Amino acid sequence: MKKVVTFGELMLRLAPQGYYRFQQVDSFGATFGGGEANVAVSLANYGYDACFVTKLPKHAIGQSAVNSLRRYGVNTAHIARGGDRVGIYYLEKGASQRGSVCIYDRAHSAIQEASSADFNWEEIFKGAEWFHFTGITPALGQNMVNVCLEACKAAKKAGVKISCDLNYRGKLWTREQARTAMTELCKYVDVCISNEEDAKDVFGIEAANSDIYGGKLDKEGYKSVAKQLADTFGFEKVAITLRTSISANDNDWAALLFDGTDYCFSKEYHMHIVDRVGGGDSFGGGLIYALLEGKSTQDAVEFAVAASCLKHTIEGDYNMVTVDEVEKLAAGNASGRVQR
Amino acid sequence: MKKVVTFGELMLRLAPQGYYRFQQVDSFGATFGGGEANVAVSLANYGYDACFVTKLPKHAIGQSAVNSLRRYGVNTAHIARGGDRVGIYYLEKGASQRGSVCIYDRAHSAIQEASSADFNWEEIFKGAEWFHFTGITPALGQNMVNVCLEACKAAKKAGVKISCDLNYRGKLWTREQARTAMTELCKYVDVCISNEEDAKDVFGIEAANSDIYGGKLDKEGYKSVAKQLADTFGFEKVAITLRTSISANDNDWAALLFDGTDYCFSKEYHMHIVDRVGGGDSFGGGLIYALLEGKSTQDAVEFAVAASCLKHTIEGDYNMVTVDEVEKLAAGNASGRVQR
Amino acid sequence: MKKVVTFGELMLRLAPQGYYRFQQVDSFGATFGGGEANVAVSLANYGYDACFVTKLPKHAIGQSAVNSLRRYGVNTAHIARGGDRVGIYYLEKGASQRGSVCIYDRAHSAIQEASSADFNWEEIFKGAEWFHFTGITPALGQNMVNVCLEACKAAKKAGVKISCDLNYRGKLWTREQARTAMTELCKYVDVCISNEEDAKDVFGIEAANSDIYGGKLDKEGYKSVAKQLADTFGFEKVAITLRTSISANDNDWAALLFDGTDYCFSKEYHMHIVDRVGGGDSFGGGLIYALLEGKSTQDAVEFAVAASCLKHTIEGDYNMVTVDEVEKLAAGNASGRVQR
Amino acid sequence: MKKVVTFGELMLRLAPQGYYRFQQVDSFGATFGGGEANVAVSLANYGYDACFVTKLPKHAIGQSAVNSLRRYGVNTAHIARGGDRVGIYYLEKGASQRGSVCIYDRAHSAIQEASSADFNWEEIFKGAEWFHFTGITPALGQNMVNVCLEACKAAKKAGVKISCDLNYRGKLWTREQARTAMTELCKYVDVCISNEEDAKDVFGIEAANSDIYGGKLDKEGYKSVAKQLADTFGFEKVAITLRTSISANDNDWAALLFDGTDYCFSKEYHMHIVDRVGGGDSFGGGLIYALLEGKSTQDAVEFAVAASCLKHTIEGDYNMVTVDEVEKLAAGNASGRVQR
Amino acid sequence: MKKVVTFGELMLRLAPQGYYRFQQVDSFGATFGGGEANVAVSLANYGYDACFVTKLPKHAIGQSAVNSLRRYGVNTAHIARGGDRVGIYYLEKGASQRGSVCIYDRAHSAIQEASSADFNWEEIFKGAEWFHFTGITPALGQNMVNVCLEACKAAKKAGVKISCDLNYRGKLWTREQARTAMTELCKYVDVCISNEEDAKDVFGIEAANSDIYGGKLDKEGYKSVAKQLADTFGFEKVAITLRTSISANDNDWAALLFDGTDYCFSKEYHMHIVDRVGGGDSFGGGLIYALLEGKSTQDAVEFAVAASCLKHTIEGDYNMVTVDEVEKLAAGNASGRVQR
Amino acid sequence: MKKVVTFGELMLRLAPQGYYRFQQVDSFGATFGGGEANVAVSLANYGYDACFVTKLPKHAIGQSAVNSLRRYGVNTAHIARGGDRVGIYYLEKGASQRGSVCIYDRAHSAIQEASSADFNWEEIFKGAEWFHFTGITPALGQNMVNVCLEACKAAKKAGVKISCDLNYRGKLWTREQARTAMTELCKYVDVCISNEEDAKDVFGIEAANSDIYGGKLDKEGYKSVAKQLADTFGFEKVAITLRTSISANDNDWAALLFDGTDYCFSKEYHMHIVDRVGGGDSFGGGLIYALLEGKSTQDAVEFAVAASCLKHTIEGDYNMVTVDEVEKLAAGNASGRVQR
Repeated sequence: MKKVVTFGELMLRLAPQGYYRFQQVDSFGATFGGGEANVAVSLANYGYDACFVTKLPKHAIGQSAVNSLRRYGVNTAHIARGGDRVGIYYLEKGASQRGSVCIYDRAHSAIQEASSADFNWEEIFKGAEWFHFTGITPALGQNMVNVCLEACKAAKKAGVKISCDLNYRGKLWTREQARTAMTELCKYVDVCISNEEDAKDVFGIEAANSDIYGGKLDKEGYKSVAKQLADTFGFEKVAITLRTSISANDNDWAALLFDGTDYCFSKEYHMHIVDRVGGGDSFGGGLIYALLEGKSTQDAVEFAVAASCLKHTIEGDYNMVTVDEVEKLAAGNASGRVQR
Repeated sequence: MKKVVTFGELMLRLAPQGYYRFQQVDSFGATFGGGEANVAVSLANYGYDACFVTKLPKHAIGQSAVNSLRRYGVNTAHIARGGDRVGIYYLEKGASQRGSVCIYDRAHSAIQEASSADFNWEEIFKGAEWFHFTGITPALGQNMVNVCLEACKAAKKAGVKISCDLNYRGKLWTREQARTAMTELCKYVDVCISNEEDAKDVFGIEAANSDIYGGKLDKEGYKSVAKQLADTFGFEKVAITLRTSISANDNDWAALLFDGTDYCFSKEYHMHIVDRVGGGDSFGGGLIYALLEGKSTQDAVEFAVAASCLKHTIEGDYNMVTVDEVEKLAAGNASGRVQR
Repeated sequence: MKKVVTFGELMLRLAPQGYYRFQQVDSFGATFGGGEANVAVSLANYGYDACFVTKLPKHAIGQSAVNSLRRYGVNTAHIARGGDRVGIYYLEKGASQRGSVCIYDRAHSAIQEASSADFNWEEIFKGAEWFHFTGITPALGQNMVNVCLEACKAAKKAGVKISCDLNYRGKLWTREQARTAMTELCKYVDVCISNEEDAKDVFGIEAANSDIYGGKLDKEGYKSVAKQLADTFGFEKVAITLRTSISANDNDWAALLFDGTDYCFSKEYHMHIVDRVGGGDSFGGGLIYALLEGKSTQDAVEFAVAASCLKHTIEGDYNMVTVDEVEKLAAGNASGRVQR
Repeated sequence: MKKVVTFGELMLRLAPQGYYRFQQVDSFGATFGGGEANVAVSLANYGYDACFVTKLPKHAIGQSAVNSLRRYGVNTAHIARGGDRVGIYYLEKGASQRGSVCIYDRAHSAIQEASSADFNWEEIFKGAEWFHFTGITPALGQNMVNVCLEACKAAKKAGVKISCDLNYRGKLWTREQARTAMTELCKYVDVCISNEEDAKDVFGIEAANSDIYGGKLDKEGYKSVAKQLADTFGFEKVAITLRTSISANDNDWAALLFDGTDYCFSKEYHMHIVDRVGGGDSFGGGLIYALLEGKSTQDAVEFAVAASCLKHTIEGDYNMVTVDEVEKLAAGNASGRVQR
Repeated sequence: MKKVVTFGELMLRLAPQGYYRFQQVDSFGATFGGGEANVAVSLANYGYDACFVTKLPKHAIGQSAVNSLRRYGVNTAHIARGGDRVGIYYLEKGASQRGSVCIYDRAHSAIQEASSADFNWEEIFKGAEWFHFTGITPALGQNMVNVCLEACKAAKKAGVKISCDLNYRGKLWTREQARTAMTELCKYVDVCISNEEDAKDVFGIEAANSDIYGGKLDKEGYKSVAKQLADTFGFEKVAITLRTSISANDNDWAALLFDGTDYCFSKEYHMHIVDRVGGGDSFGGGLIYALLEGKSTQDAVEFAVAASCLKHTIEGDYNMVTVDEVEKLAAGNASGRVQR
Repeated sequence: MKKVVTFGELMLRLAPQGYYRFQQVDSFGATFGGGEANVAVSLANYGYDACFVTKLPKHAIGQSAVNSLRRYGVNTAHIARGGDRVGIYYLEKGASQRGSVCIYDRAHSAIQEASSADFNWEEIFKGAEWFHFTGITPALGQNMVNVCLEACKAAKKAGVKISCDLNYRGKLWTREQARTAMTELCKYVDVCISNEEDAKDVFGIEAANSDIYGGKLDKEGYKSVAKQLADTFGFEKVAITLRTSISANDNDWAALLFDGTDYCFSKEYHMHIVDRVGGGDSFGGGLIYALLEGKSTQDAVEFAVAASCLKHTIEGDYNMVTVDEVEKLAAGNASGRVQR
């Protein structure tokens, strides 16, 4: 069982049922999610020893967060316990022309106030083959930048591959803060995942001629972004996810994977969306699995895109699919027929 | 804070969850709605002093109806209390080729049995700038025709603008009854809102060459309807809403606003519908706001159509959107991306 | 009131709410369904004396199954009571590229362990005009093959028309078992309902040039399948349902009815699906009604397809529509407008 | 299968979940209930041909009301269809010192506006052995008094026993109206069911020394009420239900049955209440069954009280128990142990 | 309409349905509550102009908090808007021997980080007759101690009566911090509400011989506590609430009101609890109403205890009762009979 | 972390919400439970390495069963995967005089059809200190008797203590079958758990003078049962649970633990029940923990009874309590006060 470590925040997600707006309801679905935890669940569902590292309070809500991961077989042995609160995000699902709304209430969470002393990276990376984090973790504060650096160094020392999803969040830090921290961290990264906006927001790297609010994808532009990222940081591989947002319900979804030599574009899927949150993370989970399994660049990007296509049909942050289900879709069966 | 008065019935809406049919369920969502109340909620959400006038029983169900308005900041100070029952409508949401079903149980409601003595219009219109009602209110009975007339006269006397949505309901009165009453009432109206069917049902005014069951919109025809309405009643402005019903889930939606000189058509939106009820009312609310804010004819119709486009993505009768959200859509951001 | 008898298994259907996957939920919707029972409910809703025959345990869950039919007016007087368990199927609704999943837990159900002694066919067919079963019933075991044969013989003796939906289920029996049993049973059948796959799976009858995973319908191919079926078994009429699965949410749906002379294709509907299960059964129910009412071949297939189109908009196995609703859709009103 | 006919109104019951107050909720449980329908369901559950007679609208809500009875096997063949509305009652469940609240919205219901022409009593009573109604039915209006009289006369003519539960409702008619109508109707009644309040409200018959708001039962007083009722109207049997209301959650419950000779008091049960509505009706259903089965006076009152004791543990108006469950409780097993 | 001002924090209350523990659920009921807001809702339900003052974020969750008050008619005109988060408390309802669990996540809420500049007390107290706060508000931080002092001084200046519920919360501040702050604040207070524990925790004032974990009430001890409080701070009136906790479901509840001369004990109620939270606040609301209405000391304590007894039967923090309902219970009708 | 192994069946529990009867609902709560799995969850919640052994199908429902244990930290590494079905039990919660109803649908489950080859006991018991099973496991069939014997022998060989809860289930086997199998298995058992009925049903061992349907406990009788059990099988310790069933809502609960020398009775708790299922298992879990922690006989029985008292307040089969919560109750704090 291959071991992958991911590190970040796990938040309580409070969301009205269906398409209700926040102000209409008096109950919230209460599940958990967060970029790196979502990747861990994907990998646990693929049969890996997915070890998620974070810090969570000792009280019952913190325990519920841990349980949400144990339920799907994630290794929670290295989660530090302590601190006062579980970060929260309120999610209102959009429809048609009305976009989803996300309100963060994550300041002062246990992980935000964690320190180096909470994590024994040498121990954590024992037996691991891969380490994954996203740009959200260092965005939580300077202590998290430091911890991420420590983790990256320990990973490198242990011969563990590192992937990072740039994932820029403008509500957490400024572009300048992001650029400074991510420039340092990316020195350790082998596989970079980004979308067009992130590359621009974090590093100022841009593709010409594309319109993220609904225009057609510009293949040459994306190749240029991937190349620039690889050249700047020496990434072994760069993945660019390509989302065309037709409406809150309907998106087109594809990706490009650049391995230093070839630019492999995946098939494009037209998706009727059930839940869009975690879509990017499920791509990351799929990509890590595909690369660890030794798939070709084309097969890897097809697996990762098929995995995240399926995620868009699933409620909650976590991608609840098996390798078999992903393989079938990647192989071309997208008809959605009843399996009986 | 601009004050707008609306007058009509507020009903209890009993609706199965999701797409269940009436005979399948043993619980109903129990919210409240009604054409003029829906307009009031729209305007309260835009920050106005929206004063809704009706009559409701003193018991707890009547109080719940009042509370449903107070919750969103509607001014309920002039709601008369008394009578026996809250009108009810049962709503079954349609899907695909199956249309929504609406069963009215509104006879003998408190407002239907109200009389002139229940409303002090002079008091109600103090400080008001606009008065809105729909063709549903006079359709409730001759006493309501009379009360509407009294309201219109008092509004005119107080220098208050009047808008009316024709809203013909064949289950409440005949075309002849409607024509007689509405012809009288329209004398006081400044801004008329209609769809193609209403203009024909109430006043026999028709546009040639259009097919409400799915055909393409005929722009010239709609301009002709607007012109005829304006000419007949001396309306300052006439708005025609343009719905193309592809299926119960998918509608196209646009409108025309005629200001006596220019015919301004809005953008057309393709909507994947969450809840279609109150769609017309949200147009009315948007139009009143836009006109009171002094927007141009083109900007006003764009605002009103964007507001009602968003309504179609929201559960319940009430349009739960802010000015900012409407402006963004009217300005062209229809991609439904996550706001985070 | 015309009497129709149907015979088969009624199962408890356990399904997560909305689009949740099995492993995400801690409650299941608990309704009942099964091919022949679904047909009976359709016919009861059309006003017929629909008599459903099966065997169910005496305990409260068995009683709930009976009640689910009585609720909609199905005649349950000939349901044998006894045995240990109600068969179960777990249903997970798919979305977009993710197909629905069906897990059967129906082995050892009361009907699977029933015998000839449980059914008095002479009594059951008194006053009946039609008998319907599907290929699922004999697939439940050799005793059920025998009981089906007894039923068919008794029906023939009583002058009752027989229809059969081939409905091949690979999880219940092999193609060879199916061919042997169905070849024998089809000798008694007057009206055969099939889709392209069933004809091939059960009898090896194929149409060239069609792709069930999303390709365009090949009219000539379907005609050929119908003709072969009619010629082989002497069926009076053969109906072929034609589904194009674009995604789990979007299907196209049509049918062909061959009466020995004419090949009548119905209109094709593009459906946005609420619940796909029972779609075929609702076609069967519609067809039986249309034929018993003496409709023409073209009108019959239009009625049956319109009925099943509406079923796809309804939650659960049972088709909850009236003759009037089906007629309206068959007559061309597919816009899904609000009925108020 | 013994046939019993009951006649009255079936209402839609709209109730918040659990102990929520009306003004706190935005959904209602939507079930059906009404004194005589409740008795019919009890009897259907005991295996009788329970024929409930009423009038209900043809629309889907009326059909749902019919279905709520068919589901439990009630004979609905003689329900007249027509009229505009299903009567409604809003029910808020009380707890501890807070009593339940019932708001009626039943005026103008189909049954209230029904007439003699809607019911063919001769046909209805074919094969029947018992007819039951309550004082609520004639309270619905003079036309209902007349129809009740017609029903009683037809019943007598057909040799059918008649029982009546006095069930005085002060919101429907005055004591004087009740006395006039019930005095006439009681001439036809064989078995009278009452509680202490009803006897006093309707006929002015009182027992001294008892306090319905929580005092101890005064056995002699109740015997005196039963005797006076029997003497005044020539009833064959008189049943008096004895409720001591400790709180909304806790009631003591017993009854007296007088057969002209013996005064038989049942055991008294201390009940922790799930749903109190329909408690009296379940007593009536139990009593009719016990008398039709030829039980002794003591056994009959024990059966009826045990049946209604169980009703208090069941949600909704309808008593969902079997003869076997009632017999076991009447025989003394009141420990509520798990049956496994 | 008498105006009462209350000041404090309004929190989002996240609670599993029924008696589920935190770790079992994936949804939370999401309502709002907080000591002083609860008092405001009580008073709004009694028909007063109840003006609640706090600070809440501008986002949709902050708006939902405001709406939860507007719904019940609370005056929200003086709620400052800004800051980052709405305070949260997680509530798990206990049963029998398992106590309820409350986890606070209220640090850094908008009100905790508010300052004097957010509140214009002179404006707020215009027309007011009463000001109420609890010991929770100053416990939120030194800035809140200061704001409370400013409020008290402004109230005194405006001739407004002041009541304070000591409400010691050991998780928010130490006994020493509480004593220092409350000693200063109590100089302005006219009516003090406390329970035995609070008096001891905050001021070290104790009654001998009482056992808060289930023993019998010691009347003399409570009189001594009331007297000591009144003597120390010059309170005009002191109320002591008396809870005997038999189990999480069953409590006895009474109170003592001392007016400087008389010690008036209320009736004691045995309560079967629906929701215990807000019980003390509903006492405060009842007491303020009773005193403002000029009731005698005995009548005032009876009204306040009856009001809070009813609160224990109501879900959520807010007491949803009318004056009429409280008066009836105070007058002795505690049988919980159905009101129909 | 001490390792405890338990072995048995894990079933899907399908239960109507609240107090609804089976025939009233169209959804079921879907959780998992089973005697030995319940013990494992208790122990995992106490911080042990609780290893549950069973066999479950590979499909999604089987996976959900596994996940229900992983969620709470149970070690599922030795669960065999295969077979066709997850056993089911339908549970209807009783109230007051109506007892709970349990309908088993567990025949042919994966574990019932498992064989010795599915379990490697030597591997399973590595590092373990305790093995627990109940009389339900061998009752599943002769293969399970054999597997239990193999497990017991392997446990003995590995120096692992063995406890067994007799748990006689008359629906699974006869008294004679039970006696034969359990007599053999009990040779290996160190700690026996029983209630009065089990001892009698399985071994014919009886205490005089006690009435399980509500009478008072007879201490001498229970001591005699414990002594007889210990003497017959050489048990080191015998625990007898003592339940007095006042009603479905109210039970008294205590236990006796005999250690060969002393007979220690626990305190008796009066419980207002939330969910009674799993009550005995939570006693077993508490007892194993207390004995492994080296508590005295009196302290052990107090811990076990307090643990199971708390279980009765918790929904579902699993006991969701911490050591700390149990210790507090055992130490005497049974007032159910809010913890805040």
